[in-house]
Amino acid sequence: MDNQKRFLLTEKEIPTHWYNIVADMKNKPLPMMNPQTKKPLTLDDMTGVFCKACSEQELNTTDAWIEIPEEVRNLYKNYRSTPLVRAYGLEKALGTPAHIYFKNESVSPIGSHKLNSALAQAYYCKQEGVTNITTETGAGQWGAALSYAAKAFGLELAVFMVKISFEQKPYRRSIMQTFGAQVVASPSMSTKAGRKILTETPNYQGSLGTAISEAVELAMQTPNCKYVLGSVLNHVTLHQTVIGLEAEKQMEMAGEYPDIVIGCFGGGSNFGGICFPFMRHNILDGKTTRFIAAEPASCPKLTKGKFHYDFGDEAGYTPLIPMFTLGHNFSPANIHAGGLRYHGAGSIVSQLLKDGMMEAADVKQLDTFKAATIFAQAEGIIPAPESSHAICVAIQEALKAKEEGKQKTILFNLSGHGLIDMSAYDMYLRGDLKNYEVSDSEIDSNLSGLDKIINL
Amino acid sequence: MDNQKRFLLTEKEIPTHWYNIVADMKNKPLPMMNPQTKKPLTLDDMTGVFCKACSEQELNTTDAWIEIPEEVRNLYKNYRSTPLVRAYGLEKALGTPAHIYFKNESVSPIGSHKLNSALAQAYYCKQEGVTNITTETGAGQWGAALSYAAKAFGLELAVFMVKISFEQKPYRRSIMQTFGAQVVASPSMSTKAGRKILTETPNYQGSLGTAISEAVELAMQTPNCKYVLGSVLNHVTLHQTVIGLEAEKQMEMAGEYPDIVIGCFGGGSNFGGICFPFMRHNILDGKTTRFIAAEPASCPKLTKGKFHYDFGDEAGYTPLIPMFTLGHNFSPANIHAGGLRYHGAGSIVSQLLKDGMMEAADVKQLDTFKAATIFAQAEGIIPAPESSHAICVAIQEALKAKEEGKQKTILFNLSGHGLIDMSAYDMYLRGDLKNYEVSDSEIDSNLSGLDKIINL
Repeated sequence: MDNQKRFLLTEKEIPTHWYNIVADMKNKPLPMMNPQTKKPLTLDDMTGVFCKACSEQELNTTDAWIEIPEEVRNLYKNYRSTPLVRAYGLEKALGTPAHIYFKNESVSPIGSHKLNSALAQAYYCKQEGVTNITTETGAGQWGAALSYAAKAFGLELAVFMVKISFEQKPYRRSIMQTFGAQVVASPSMSTKAGRKILTETPNYQGSLGTAISEAVELAMQTPNCKYVLGSVLNHVTLHQTVIGLEAEKQMEMAGEYPDIVIGCFGGGSNFGGICFPFMRHNILDGKTTRFIAAEPASCPKLTKGKFHYDFGDEAGYTPLIPMFTLGHNFSPANIHAGGLRYHGAGSIVSQLLKDGMMEAADVKQLDTFKAATIFAQAEGIIPAPESSHAICVAIQEALKAKEEGKQKTILFNLSGHGLIDMSAYDMYLRGDLKNYEVSDSEIDSNLSGLDKIINL
Repeated sequence: MDNQKRFLLTEKEIPTHWYNIVADMKNKPLPMMNPQTKKPLTLDDMTGVFCKACSEQELNTTDAWIEIPEEVRNLYKNYRSTPLVRAYGLEKALGTPAHIYFKNESVSPIGSHKLNSALAQAYYCKQEGVTNITTETGAGQWGAALSYAAKAFGLELAVFMVKISFEQKPYRRSIMQTFGAQVVASPSMSTKAGRKILTETPNYQGSLGTAISEAVELAMQTPNCKYVLGSVLNHVTLHQTVIGLEAEKQMEMAGEYPDIVIGCFGGGSNFGGICFPFMRHNILDGKTTRFIAAEPASCPKLTKGKFHYDFGDEAGYTPLIPMFTLGHNFSPANIHAGGLRYHGAGSIVSQLLKDGMMEAADVKQLDTFKAATIFAQAEGIIPAPESSHAICVAIQEALKAKEEGKQKTILFNLSGHGLIDMSAYDMYLRGDLKNYEVSDSEIDSNLSGLDKIINL
């Protein structure tokens, strides 16, 4: 076999602009709402919590292309372009006629795609004279990325790490500390939101929703401090489009165009990051690529949630977001894909799903680890439990292509490696992992009160 | 700053041959000896333990270039070329006029350079009809690499993992198991060598020397089984020269040539891998590059050892190797750079050191973690404790250049990342790590009996 396996861009070919899909969407996402005024969120509402540049990007519905600042692009060069890889080993293991490609974001120094937005947000904060930032992290991928980004721009960072991940993934905590960040398990006693939940549920294992509440609260109470988010919001997804924009050029180098693009789904930033640049051609150029969001069966907001205005966090500090949601106080099972334990989807993805521009698939924990092991043995890379959701759906589609005897071109995002998640693999190998599913009645009861609470 | 940061080769530019420095050395290394016959090791002696192709490479003193098999080159393409990176961040942090480059072997799917030889050795074994292989591993970098390589070529693998690393680095054990390898802590009760040392020293934490004894013993007792080694020997270093050969082309792309090349030193394969292709130009073309092996102060075979014939393993199963050694039963302190806890240096490096073709520096554990933290914060990459020895010496040389006001070009090998070694970083951050040094008298007493035991 003498075909090219990895496709890389030169530093000059690294994208100069991010892609803002909202500008091209026929049905724009509904606006986020201020829960106090019950009116669409204004720039002023946003800048109370976020830095100005990110707030502007968040509300930008007209500019399809937003320039990547030179300083950010310069730091991107430390690890970008990431390779687009033809997964010959996986194709062989599955005996499929499908051509499988993956974008390997795991080779970023931090081990995941998260750095793409962390560097941008830290840069903007620094530019605006911010000295301190706060954030939440689930599995720790985002926290690790932001810790390095904060250090690179000389900012002080406090990270609220979801308690279950704090315990399951102590190495990620050490990584953040090595970069100089303050890390605390969430729920913590250091915020009102944390104290409230600890009082009501002393053994609560935490969730992204709770950690966000704590980080927002601390940011609002600290002088010269902004809150920084790792997913869900439009500006975060915007920064992640560098993934798909690179992949587009790289697929062209490979002489192919994807029939199916797959990303795992937590808040939507890695999914949107790889998909939106390709979806642009569905919107504008009549392409018919399928886009599949792979979410855990234990946290199925896209496949079983309800489209509704809801809070982005547990305590209700955030604006109201038009989202597919399981309810902002949904408590996800302790799966190892900590980055996917979030109750809702961002407003862009929610609108696109509603409009049939994309699909969603839910997968069970044991199936994701089985897929991860097949992938690891075939390609030599241990994938993150989050990314394994995308791999699982990619394998399902490749086997479907085999059954149908069709040569499909499948692209998925390998959002990160799983080297810090080996305790989960250990449990899987020992047979100690299990599946979690959510019943319809549990979801219904969780959502039933939503109209009363959020009365727009 | 708009200069290029990372230099990559196309798949076509990946080297087609490894470089065998022995062919160009004026003083050849002394031959290895068969301890029974007391005569130079023959091909037959070697093939009892190793596969034939590796045995031939081991004894080859005439061919400077040895072709990389197409199947191996094809698997190299999964991750090679690895980037050559200009460490602008580190240069800035140190305020040095030196230009610092590192070859980033940490982006291999396994996280270190070890895959370069693992793939080659597994391929040769498969070609020769071998079905089972055994090996040892210290920190687990080699074991992880060989586990994937064995799976890629359909071989069964048993790994003896040094006990202290087995306990300090459980994630690496899980990685090996995810790839389908059998992993056992060494010393174990499953071999004569293991039982003997456990009986004499029940709490012995293990060493590479002991693990090698166990792996060799099992290979000799198992039908259709060969032993595979991760460092020290000539053929392993040969396979690693792909690092330096790539770096040579990449330095040319950067328009520079190194004044100093640095590698950390365990058995010598990553050191030789990056250095020998450049050293070739010292031998043949009158270049005057300095080559520095960075070893732990707690295991200082190059700086404080004695040049002598010695066994490669603790039990005395291996041939006698002409090496700088601390004695084959030297018991190294439990530093976290498990891959450097080995008593001797390979015969090529030992000869080169004797002939003044290279230098050695010993560094203390706390200094290596300090250097690692500076590097991590400046470049965003958490280095392996082993690689941090090279970083430490690179920083020392860069600061010397600053003091002298000289613009030196420094190249070091980042042999692997430290994401699996975060417990060590944790201890460092908590102030719980300490330095270990070996006294001259301890070394003397350890070496004093060597002449009697090894009476050639």
